[in-house]
Amino acid sequence: MSTLRPALLTDHYELTMVSAALRDGTADRRCVFEVFSRRLPSGRRYGVVAGTARLIELIRNFRFDEAEVDFLLRRGVVDEPAAAWLRDYRFTGDIDGYAEGELFFPNSPVLTVSGTFAECVVLETLVLSVLNHDSAVAAAAARMVTAARGRTLIEMGSRRAHEGAAVAAARAAYLAGFGFTSNLEAGRRYGIPTAGTAAHAFTLLHDDERTAFASQVATLGKDTTLLVDTYDISQGIRNAIAVAGTDLRAVRIDSGDLAVIAQQSRELLDSLGATETKIIVSGDLDEYAIAALAAEPVDMYGAGTAVVTGSGAPTVGLVYKLVEVDGRPVVKRSEHKATIGGRKIAVRRHKPTGTATEEIIVPQGVPDRQPNDRLLQRSYVVGGEAAELPTLEESREHLRQCLISIPWEGLKLSAGDPAIPVTVVPAA
Amino acid sequence: MSTLRPALLTDHYELTMVSAALRDGTADRRCVFEVFSRRLPSGRRYGVVAGTARLIELIRNFRFDEAEVDFLLRRGVVDEPAAAWLRDYRFTGDIDGYAEGELFFPNSPVLTVSGTFAECVVLETLVLSVLNHDSAVAAAAARMVTAARGRTLIEMGSRRAHEGAAVAAARAAYLAGFGFTSNLEAGRRYGIPTAGTAAHAFTLLHDDERTAFASQVATLGKDTTLLVDTYDISQGIRNAIAVAGTDLRAVRIDSGDLAVIAQQSRELLDSLGATETKIIVSGDLDEYAIAALAAEPVDMYGAGTAVVTGSGAPTVGLVYKLVEVDGRPVVKRSEHKATIGGRKIAVRRHKPTGTATEEIIVPQGVPDRQPNDRLLQRSYVVGGEAAELPTLEESREHLRQCLISIPWEGLKLSAGDPAIPVTVVPAA
Repeated sequence: MSTLRPALLTDHYELTMVSAALRDGTADRRCVFEVFSRRLPSGRRYGVVAGTARLIELIRNFRFDEAEVDFLLRRGVVDEPAAAWLRDYRFTGDIDGYAEGELFFPNSPVLTVSGTFAECVVLETLVLSVLNHDSAVAAAAARMVTAARGRTLIEMGSRRAHEGAAVAAARAAYLAGFGFTSNLEAGRRYGIPTAGTAAHAFTLLHDDERTAFASQVATLGKDTTLLVDTYDISQGIRNAIAVAGTDLRAVRIDSGDLAVIAQQSRELLDSLGATETKIIVSGDLDEYAIAALAAEPVDMYGAGTAVVTGSGAPTVGLVYKLVEVDGRPVVKRSEHKATIGGRKIAVRRHKPTGTATEEIIVPQGVPDRQPNDRLLQRSYVVGGEAAELPTLEESREHLRQCLISIPWEGLKLSAGDPAIPVTVVPAA
Repeated sequence: MSTLRPALLTDHYELTMVSAALRDGTADRRCVFEVFSRRLPSGRRYGVVAGTARLIELIRNFRFDEAEVDFLLRRGVVDEPAAAWLRDYRFTGDIDGYAEGELFFPNSPVLTVSGTFAECVVLETLVLSVLNHDSAVAAAAARMVTAARGRTLIEMGSRRAHEGAAVAAARAAYLAGFGFTSNLEAGRRYGIPTAGTAAHAFTLLHDDERTAFASQVATLGKDTTLLVDTYDISQGIRNAIAVAGTDLRAVRIDSGDLAVIAQQSRELLDSLGATETKIIVSGDLDEYAIAALAAEPVDMYGAGTAVVTGSGAPTVGLVYKLVEVDGRPVVKRSEHKATIGGRKIAVRRHKPTGTATEEIIVPQGVPDRQPNDRLLQRSYVVGGEAAELPTLEESREHLRQCLISIPWEGLKLSAGDPAIPVTVVPAA
């Protein structure tokens, strides 16, 4: 599977800065860049770090080939010395950061990239593109998983996202606890279980609904899901059971007042003896719609648009800021966008019961550790060499544990403060 | 430049439907699928078709290689007959649709894909991914262009979008009238002018602001933009002019109350003799923020998050529905999601002055043409062969003309009805 070459997924100014810094001798100053968000998206109580493994893989392939350098020279983006530097580029610095699947809050130092100014600055756009997108999807997906209260979720939003973003979105949703995706490339690239059976088009293609159902069952067996709302839902359910028998695995309903229809469908299925046949609902479901169906006889939810677009927050506002030069903290001082200088170490503090109480961030120092503190940063890249990455399943389990650890108010869907406070503590 | 192989950017159910349809003999029925939206995103008065040329190129490369087919067999998505069919797949049907850059409204038949059921159904996800994403960005960008009233816009939102989506977003923003993008890959792939100079990190890297400015001017010349808000904006402007002289091209301000700061900055620049130095503002600008700066001395806007995320509407709700089988119109009848059967022809009706008054859609027939009607569909693919596509510049000009043609109320940023009504007229 070919993927995008990452080197030009970069903003113009990163390379003009490299040109200027090479010329004035500052390109090799040791720098620390930090990824953090100033605030969570409106109403959210936590963020979810996602995309880190994808990012580290892209950085590993971050090289400028001759055609790319030629383009940059022709356009006047870089001069010859910068072009020569780009031809030899590979990242030789260090990257530390939160685990994929970790929660984050305002000012959490989600990722720390250190090395020379030039080698770090060119990664800005790629780092932010990956983390902002994947974290937005993962956070929305995590809220849906909470709202689903243990019922299975299927991600089916590929059609509502850019075709490449769709694959990453499927991964982020799975990380957050979704059980399946409809996206085949996500199945292949990341090993995520894929699911799907038929669209309304399949029913319309056939002379009548029963013929369509019979064809589907003949090919896919009774362990399939029949889409029963192309014409009349009650008749669709009767047709489904007439064709497949009472051991049909599931019916799917994609339209109408899902609460009412789920109840009526359950009653009808039961009356037909199909007491084990599951009900899958879909159609513009977000975390609130899912929560509203909690009391209804629904077995599985299909979510599309809302999950792949971050359910109102399609980006999480992560920024990539220079915080240290040659060991000195640096800060931008303009209003509203002030930063906290210096490399930071972060721990999450917990009660002995395991409930998180606070995140402690120490710039240019080490936190005074308490017994139930957990260090939040791990090493991803050392001297340009990537460490072994957690598997997607491990990151998924990590997020599941993190969500168990925050105070219950933190899981509420309503707007509220961050689930735990973040305290920036000056080093001792 | 390698791009994603498109064949698996597809939903699981499309291939299970192919399996079943091949087995029951319906796979070769002649079908017409139509792309349309049931409604515009909340508050919007028009949609903008974007991504069509990108899509046609992806469809041209839509083939299943051996590794992809193996994956599908191993996962049980397809059976052997379907696998054999996929190995030979290439689209041999027809694709008609609105021009890229055309406006659309609820029920506009934006794209029509015809061929056998199986060859058309597998394109559903890819078609919708591309058009939903690119059209969302283009519509937001077009509103910003209107709000900017002739001032130049720079797209700088790559960091707030998936890394692949960012490239397509830059293209869609340029289509809509933006003048530049920060995204280098968009510059290379689509020939879009790129722009950018320096981030706050560049100033922070240096020992002081003047040194940073001097370095930038030494490398990029005076025809550059100095970012003056790292510390104190007034002092930043004084430093900029002290270093570059009064023929500095531009200063950029990325924070604070931009209306007030633009005025103060203009006065200060003028008082320093830099009357020709431009002011570029950026920082969470959307169409409303841009409109609010109309009276201020701003020369150029940088827009990021809002444009790449569709400014509140990250997808435009285009769907891909089967409307005709073997010449018969077909319709889904379930509530709220009814479709209009049959292949449709669309024209836009205009006053003699050129102002659009109505869109006329005729299912299974040809509109009764009036003198100022414009046929909205063109042919993209005939018998699997793609026609020559308009250039991006041509599509950009097409949109510009379309926006001139709609009634002025249609350009208002406030919520309202679609700019022109869409009338579905039964064939004579």
